[in-house]
Amino acid sequence: MIARAVLVPIVARALAEDLEGGDLTTEATVDPSAEATAQAVARGEIVVCGGEVFKAVFAEIDPTLEVATYTADGAVAQSGDVLWTVRGSARSILMGERTALNFVQRLSGTATLARKYVNSVPADSTTRITDTRKTTPGLRVLERYAVRTGGAHNHRDTLGSAILIKDNHIIAAGGITRAIERAKTRGPHTSKIEVEVESMSELEEALAAGADIVMLDNFSPSNVDAAVALAKGRALVEVSGRITLERIAVLARAGVDVVSVGALTHSAPAADIGLDIRTAEIGP
Amino acid sequence: MIARAVLVPIVARALAEDLEGGDLTTEATVDPSAEATAQAVARGEIVVCGGEVFKAVFAEIDPTLEVATYTADGAVAQSGDVLWTVRGSARSILMGERTALNFVQRLSGTATLARKYVNSVPADSTTRITDTRKTTPGLRVLERYAVRTGGAHNHRDTLGSAILIKDNHIIAAGGITRAIERAKTRGPHTSKIEVEVESMSELEEALAAGADIVMLDNFSPSNVDAAVALAKGRALVEVSGRITLERIAVLARAGVDVVSVGALTHSAPAADIGLDIRTAEIGP
Amino acid sequence: MIARAVLVPIVARALAEDLEGGDLTTEATVDPSAEATAQAVARGEIVVCGGEVFKAVFAEIDPTLEVATYTADGAVAQSGDVLWTVRGSARSILMGERTALNFVQRLSGTATLARKYVNSVPADSTTRITDTRKTTPGLRVLERYAVRTGGAHNHRDTLGSAILIKDNHIIAAGGITRAIERAKTRGPHTSKIEVEVESMSELEEALAAGADIVMLDNFSPSNVDAAVALAKGRALVEVSGRITLERIAVLARAGVDVVSVGALTHSAPAADIGLDIRTAEIGP
Amino acid sequence: MIARAVLVPIVARALAEDLEGGDLTTEATVDPSAEATAQAVARGEIVVCGGEVFKAVFAEIDPTLEVATYTADGAVAQSGDVLWTVRGSARSILMGERTALNFVQRLSGTATLARKYVNSVPADSTTRITDTRKTTPGLRVLERYAVRTGGAHNHRDTLGSAILIKDNHIIAAGGITRAIERAKTRGPHTSKIEVEVESMSELEEALAAGADIVMLDNFSPSNVDAAVALAKGRALVEVSGRITLERIAVLARAGVDVVSVGALTHSAPAADIGLDIRTAEIGP
Amino acid sequence: MIARAVLVPIVARALAEDLEGGDLTTEATVDPSAEATAQAVARGEIVVCGGEVFKAVFAEIDPTLEVATYTADGAVAQSGDVLWTVRGSARSILMGERTALNFVQRLSGTATLARKYVNSVPADSTTRITDTRKTTPGLRVLERYAVRTGGAHNHRDTLGSAILIKDNHIIAAGGITRAIERAKTRGPHTSKIEVEVESMSELEEALAAGADIVMLDNFSPSNVDAAVALAKGRALVEVSGRITLERIAVLARAGVDVVSVGALTHSAPAADIGLDIRTAEIGP
Amino acid sequence: MIARAVLVPIVARALAEDLEGGDLTTEATVDPSAEATAQAVARGEIVVCGGEVFKAVFAEIDPTLEVATYTADGAVAQSGDVLWTVRGSARSILMGERTALNFVQRLSGTATLARKYVNSVPADSTTRITDTRKTTPGLRVLERYAVRTGGAHNHRDTLGSAILIKDNHIIAAGGITRAIERAKTRGPHTSKIEVEVESMSELEEALAAGADIVMLDNFSPSNVDAAVALAKGRALVEVSGRITLERIAVLARAGVDVVSVGALTHSAPAADIGLDIRTAEIGP
Repeated sequence: MIARAVLVPIVARALAEDLEGGDLTTEATVDPSAEATAQAVARGEIVVCGGEVFKAVFAEIDPTLEVATYTADGAVAQSGDVLWTVRGSARSILMGERTALNFVQRLSGTATLARKYVNSVPADSTTRITDTRKTTPGLRVLERYAVRTGGAHNHRDTLGSAILIKDNHIIAAGGITRAIERAKTRGPHTSKIEVEVESMSELEEALAAGADIVMLDNFSPSNVDAAVALAKGRALVEVSGRITLERIAVLARAGVDVVSVGALTHSAPAADIGLDIRTAEIGP
Repeated sequence: MIARAVLVPIVARALAEDLEGGDLTTEATVDPSAEATAQAVARGEIVVCGGEVFKAVFAEIDPTLEVATYTADGAVAQSGDVLWTVRGSARSILMGERTALNFVQRLSGTATLARKYVNSVPADSTTRITDTRKTTPGLRVLERYAVRTGGAHNHRDTLGSAILIKDNHIIAAGGITRAIERAKTRGPHTSKIEVEVESMSELEEALAAGADIVMLDNFSPSNVDAAVALAKGRALVEVSGRITLERIAVLARAGVDVVSVGALTHSAPAADIGLDIRTAEIGP
Repeated sequence: MIARAVLVPIVARALAEDLEGGDLTTEATVDPSAEATAQAVARGEIVVCGGEVFKAVFAEIDPTLEVATYTADGAVAQSGDVLWTVRGSARSILMGERTALNFVQRLSGTATLARKYVNSVPADSTTRITDTRKTTPGLRVLERYAVRTGGAHNHRDTLGSAILIKDNHIIAAGGITRAIERAKTRGPHTSKIEVEVESMSELEEALAAGADIVMLDNFSPSNVDAAVALAKGRALVEVSGRITLERIAVLARAGVDVVSVGALTHSAPAADIGLDIRTAEIGP
Repeated sequence: MIARAVLVPIVARALAEDLEGGDLTTEATVDPSAEATAQAVARGEIVVCGGEVFKAVFAEIDPTLEVATYTADGAVAQSGDVLWTVRGSARSILMGERTALNFVQRLSGTATLARKYVNSVPADSTTRITDTRKTTPGLRVLERYAVRTGGAHNHRDTLGSAILIKDNHIIAAGGITRAIERAKTRGPHTSKIEVEVESMSELEEALAAGADIVMLDNFSPSNVDAAVALAKGRALVEVSGRITLERIAVLARAGVDVVSVGALTHSAPAADIGLDIRTAEIGP
Repeated sequence: MIARAVLVPIVARALAEDLEGGDLTTEATVDPSAEATAQAVARGEIVVCGGEVFKAVFAEIDPTLEVATYTADGAVAQSGDVLWTVRGSARSILMGERTALNFVQRLSGTATLARKYVNSVPADSTTRITDTRKTTPGLRVLERYAVRTGGAHNHRDTLGSAILIKDNHIIAAGGITRAIERAKTRGPHTSKIEVEVESMSELEEALAAGADIVMLDNFSPSNVDAAVALAKGRALVEVSGRITLERIAVLARAGVDVVSVGALTHSAPAADIGLDIRTAEIGP
Repeated sequence: MIARAVLVPIVARALAEDLEGGDLTTEATVDPSAEATAQAVARGEIVVCGGEVFKAVFAEIDPTLEVATYTADGAVAQSGDVLWTVRGSARSILMGERTALNFVQRLSGTATLARKYVNSVPADSTTRITDTRKTTPGLRVLERYAVRTGGAHNHRDTLGSAILIKDNHIIAAGGITRAIERAKTRGPHTSKIEVEVESMSELEEALAAGADIVMLDNFSPSNVDAAVALAKGRALVEVSGRITLERIAVLARAGVDVVSVGALTHSAPAADIGLDIRTAEIGP
């Protein structure tokens, strides 16, 4: 559940963007008293995501509209499956159609892609797939929800949630050991300390200095194996950067704990969902 | 140019999303007095887009940072080309890295995809490629700019900008002719009237009723040819729906005036742009 | 219907402006449990406008208040006619009285003035009266609605909705023909192209270059006649600037298609509407 | 001076309203490198108001624009007088023209009307003209400033600023005396207590109960004289409701202390101010 | 009653601050279908304040939650007393717990401290205790309400509500008399004029110039007596600065009209209120 | 450094709260051209905090004001020490005085209290003092900064930053072991898992299930010792609830790793800081 205070402003901004000047076409052609029913329908196999957002879009246009859910978030829908319905004023429904679809196509697209990555992990593996902070500006909370809906995990939420020491932090601090020491001394005790390493020697230094998580940057397959062997039992091993669906099984079998995939949120194609509206002609 | 009053709130929201709780890692590891320089660099061939946004991101963190532009919006950059630089407080630069990249990767991704579509139009054709209202919620103004930067055109901005009569409006109004009449009577005189048609007979009715633009929905190639023949000189012909790069040349040669492509904004993969930061270690 | 996401922020800002510090008088003199009923009553002949806004004002103070509509937007009310009623907590009603009236007096004032202009158009004429972008900052969506409620039409909504080439655009582009060519090449295909002209020769150039609408700037009556004769069948003719009620019939009979009137939104006097509240004294 | 934190959001909202979708015409016809200078010029005799707002509008579009003030707020300008100038990017200036004028025409209109009322007070009178809370939703702070700029005074700012007991408060409290007692007991000691009275007997009760200000509602001229005679030295006398310019001198000579005029803010016609822009054609 | 348009944004901001990234723990450990009931309970003797805010917090997370009030604002609760209850989704309740408590502990803390000051005024005295503008940024409206709930009074709300001339205004104006004259001439007639004085001679000047209220700054006890003797019947006497509970009775007996206490809002310790939640384990 | 996009909205809201209606007194008594200099001065021994906020307050009133820092955040100031100065328009300075002080008194108050707790930790101990989520609604980012400025540490920022399993989560999950398992399975790998325990047996279960941090709730001193002995080397030990300055040394010597203190942010008294303004009288 996304708190109303978090969800509504995102939805309201999107509606204002499209509707600030009203809906010329609908006002010109549709009588105010016309009623309609509409079904959001999958146009292909997708992982469904966005029921709450769909509902909020129509409520922020016209609170008298009635929305019902036919397919829960996280379920796999086949082409033709009804996901949600909305009924009430035809004008109100037509005004919200595009914005509602823009949200749920994007969220379901992310959930669907996340599911593909998760399904690429061998059944007996505990490797987890996570997102990154490469989210769409303004939509992080929704996209992270879509990632979870797809069965993947979230990485840290914000720069203020957890510590991840990258190359520039290491240079600025004067080395891995000093960076980790500073992070342990100054960072919150609730955060693990993750360090990005670029070589086996950096990995060794990070482990010796007490990193909780090591992120392997551009390691060759054999080096990934060696890194896992070295780190096992001392720190979690995360791999990131240029991850493809095909590499997931290899990384999982290598014993990598976490694979973080920026594409989940920055390059997921929109899922195909349509809104079939039935309006009745009014009067003579 | 995007007005400051329009751009800054979008950037500020994105920063708040990531930085509301500060940057634990940077504050722990980087001295407040450390300086750095950073270069945004293309990691592949892309159409560059987002210089103003890049600048605004860093200004909304720390107005003392200095940003310079090396590659103009709309130019094609090759892998390794420097796009923009930023210099000043190392902490401030590290805090803005991800948000700045999230914007420019997305915008350059859209511009790059738009350019591909535009380049698929034969040189001697006047067919134009346009976006749709299938934009990312909250980012419409920026994505429409990216579409133009890629060389494509914008479709109507909002539901209040122009009239586009779709199937549900036609049903609600009681037919194409009546819908067009109502739109002419009630809509603003500054908007053309566009009508979506699903058959040759609907096309004929729309033309007879005085549509300015007809949008062909799911017409077969031969029907597209026939539609263009019928409409030429009477209305602009737009084709929309399931457009691929491969179809563009065919549609252009058929004489279609406009091809609108939702994928430009809903499914463009992020362009690969990195930020190479050089921080200096401070003191002993 | 104005989307809730568009209407509520406007109303909420107005209430915050008046009520941020509470209502000293009401809190001091009225018991929290006191109930009241109130009637919004016309104090003269007006075109009614603002029912939805009236309702939203009281809902944004206290959602338990009940509002009923007695006179629909667009109807003509005579002095003494009840427009809307509100009942519930006396404190809540007293807190909203002024803000509610500020909105509906202004909107009804605009609707009433628009109706006067529309009624000045001879019955057999198709000339339409439109507003301009000379709206009150922050209230454009409501004022455009009031204009329509009065029976007039809207001009383009925003700078991003349609193309209107004025003298400075012409100078900057290097002439009318070039400005129109640029607009055709670069502007969206959904917008007509309107050009402001200051002489018969400019008019001829604009028509030759394919303007869809020509706006006559300070043309003498005889020149208006000549302009209409020249443009008829080639472009719509709009007249703007220093329009008075008295000129409307003349312009309509001259065959002008559109008369745009800034005064509709920038100088309409407030309509006289009062709120008659009946509170009961509570207890001893 | 209006605090930046108060002024900028009002200006930014107005710009977003007009420019969210960019400026199609300017982007199509004006080169990005074109420069321009523009002069805001009075088109009639007006009291000037809005220099700070004019400046803020252009700064919130493009901070590189330079604005200069030629006529100070509060000065009387004659037709042709230059009020302010702005120079820089032609695109930026054209984008802000309408919004800037919408503000200053409205504010100068209010200041001009206020000045007319103030000038109607005989020279030897201390009667003051004030506004009311009948301001435009969202613009109260600016309109109150315009009223002062015109030489009139402000009434209480908000429901939380001072106590004004009206008929409904009196009924709810169980009489004038009890209402005043409650207000004295519960209201802040910094506020005077004003009471609206409808008859001589109510006036006597209000004075006896210690009202600081009495507002005469619909008193006949002779009753106004009697009321002033009764109240003089015990309370300030305010007259409100259906005030015209013609009544001011009469009321002043009767010794009324305050005349509050809703029309100053709810029905002031816009002042006529134009923006003369000089753009240079760029290149071949 | 605080208007919904004023209250909801304050609550929504607080929730966004805590919940933008969701509630990791609750989402991980509590089933979405789990129900719970929770009681807000006093953990000591307090003056209760914040029922409306408590309700708004949970409504802005999840409108299906049901909140009931057991102890009214302003009542004294003993340790163990139930103040409010909330029931519904266990997840929703757990998500709002901290934010709801942060509000009501703070408001009840202020009300409790205000009550202590009020109770220190001897029973036969009319001296009133007021707050100051030393409120928590962003929470002024709520804290002023808490002050009234505790039985104390509010001072002026904002810089725009009433006139209070301090030392710097006096210096800038060129003396007390001139400052008061200017304030009388230029300020609104609804505001009393308060002047801060630092000596008996300043007090005399302020009274002579017609101050409505005099604020004694750092007067010795004997000087307070003398000041009251001098001012009685001519102006209200307010004492401010370094006020302790112990001084209240002395000041009251000296005949001081108003004692303003910054500590009410800037240094009130939080009241101890806990939320006892009963969740049921779900399923096997 | 707090990002401008995060800091400015907090400051702007506070200013709007006080200045929406202007500053009646300053406008009445101080000439627009008057200049002033002001010094923020400590009135007692404090830990200074809020330099950036002080600067932002005045910049958001009037960007032409010049602010200089004399005492850095985190330094100890003695009574009379100058912290910051501001110079420029006397009106602008007077308008910002109260809001600026409201911020820095609160932040310095929190930093000063945090320092006291930190100084109570014996020199040879590594026990850290942290804040909690019991922050002032709307000011969390600033108060957490003040806590760090005082030398203490931050606990988790938001509900989305880290996992903290409390009694209700345990009940809902069906026991400590299951709650921890769920958290490990579902929570992000970047967060440690903290569990609140109420007895030695709960502690043992939490450690066995792999908690990273255990929070002891209401343990007696001897039980704290036992708990530390049991947990040492397996998990961090945090103590929370009813912490006083006096208990800190005892807890530190017992080997507790973390003591979290809600009072740092919910009950810190304001630090005493004054603004000494020197305005010059203008003209005759």
